[in-house]
Amino acid sequence: MKARQQTSFLFDLDGTLVDSVYDHVLAWHDALQEVGIEVSVWRLHRRIGMSGGLFTKALARETGQEFSAGILEKLRALHAKYYGARSMRTRPLPGAQELLAYLTDNKIPWAIATSGRIETAGPVLKILGVDPAKNVVITRDLVRYAKPDPDLFLAAAEKLGTDITSACVVGDSIWDMLAAQRARALGIGYLSGGYGTEELERSGAYRVYEDPADMLAHIDEVGGRR
Amino acid sequence: MKARQQTSFLFDLDGTLVDSVYDHVLAWHDALQEVGIEVSVWRLHRRIGMSGGLFTKALARETGQEFSAGILEKLRALHAKYYGARSMRTRPLPGAQELLAYLTDNKIPWAIATSGRIETAGPVLKILGVDPAKNVVITRDLVRYAKPDPDLFLAAAEKLGTDITSACVVGDSIWDMLAAQRARALGIGYLSGGYGTEELERSGAYRVYEDPADMLAHIDEVGGRR
Repeated sequence: MKARQQTSFLFDLDGTLVDSVYDHVLAWHDALQEVGIEVSVWRLHRRIGMSGGLFTKALARETGQEFSAGILEKLRALHAKYYGARSMRTRPLPGAQELLAYLTDNKIPWAIATSGRIETAGPVLKILGVDPAKNVVITRDLVRYAKPDPDLFLAAAEKLGTDITSACVVGDSIWDMLAAQRARALGIGYLSGGYGTEELERSGAYRVYEDPADMLAHIDEVGGRR
Repeated sequence: MKARQQTSFLFDLDGTLVDSVYDHVLAWHDALQEVGIEVSVWRLHRRIGMSGGLFTKALARETGQEFSAGILEKLRALHAKYYGARSMRTRPLPGAQELLAYLTDNKIPWAIATSGRIETAGPVLKILGVDPAKNVVITRDLVRYAKPDPDLFLAAAEKLGTDITSACVVGDSIWDMLAAQRARALGIGYLSGGYGTEELERSGAYRVYEDPADMLAHIDEVGGRR
């Protein structure tokens, strides 16, 4: 028999702990509009949380255009500019700080793993009150492939010193859930990124909550004890 | 046997013909933040398309606050201000103008029925190229109750001179689909407002398309012929 394992929680950041998904969506839309690329907003929403590289590749396929390296660099800079103009107003999602404090107090390992770079993630981590010097935070800069590849979550589990196959990946997007499956972790979905329950369940969520407050209220359902 | 009826199409506006749902969402969020009310963005997204009165009632229930008439008036003005700042950049959704032109050319009756007031709907109707003097457009100002009540769609069918029970209500939100059921029309859902296929189907959509272009490509599936 396999020894009992301590459950750990590996959190996505945008839309899972902080209320920033819609800001990212419109920042991408404004950036694309500025370089003359027309894409419906809902298609951008459905791609948020993916690696930026895969995001622009998917976009190129959908719009039938080739993006030069120069355009890609410009898009990234414009997105950072427009997102930055809103990100100081970003709020932690309800219960986010309480949930992380509960886990810390109960010595349950947790980490944050985000497809964002430290440049955009840094300011919202500060708003959330998470210090990457004291907590395990894996950003896109630290791994070769971002979501839906499992690398971010694998790196987070390794840095925590926990086994990924006893971890829960907590996220709001189907990319988190697909990455969870590829990592052989369990997926927990949140509605707080704006996707529907069924989308999260179909992409592998074994449980769906509204947001961190809702999960904290039901923490016993998903192994939240020492 | 009931006589064969001409199918007519009653369209929602925001998120169905024009790409404005996310602008409305963030305009509401900015307005609420300005008066000190904190609500997660996804909860606003899930309420867009509802009557403004029901929207603020639901919000009051969810946040456990009472909103005075003064606050409600201020919220409406702030939303109009923030939405207005973005609405000149709104684009028709792919295929919207082609779909309406196809219906007109084929003498298939169509109308627009929106929970928005003419003040916010006017500018985007202009971008869409629809003139309320020449086409049937029912705005919130013209009926007592907006969606999910069926009044807007009933008024649209009546003004077209068609039977609501042979009409299709085309919209992106579950409020459109619920209103369609209450009116005994068939509901056609679009993904272009950012909701998932299953949400639309569960609220009554008998068919779901990505956007107007996708419906136009499959118009024979839903009675699009004279």
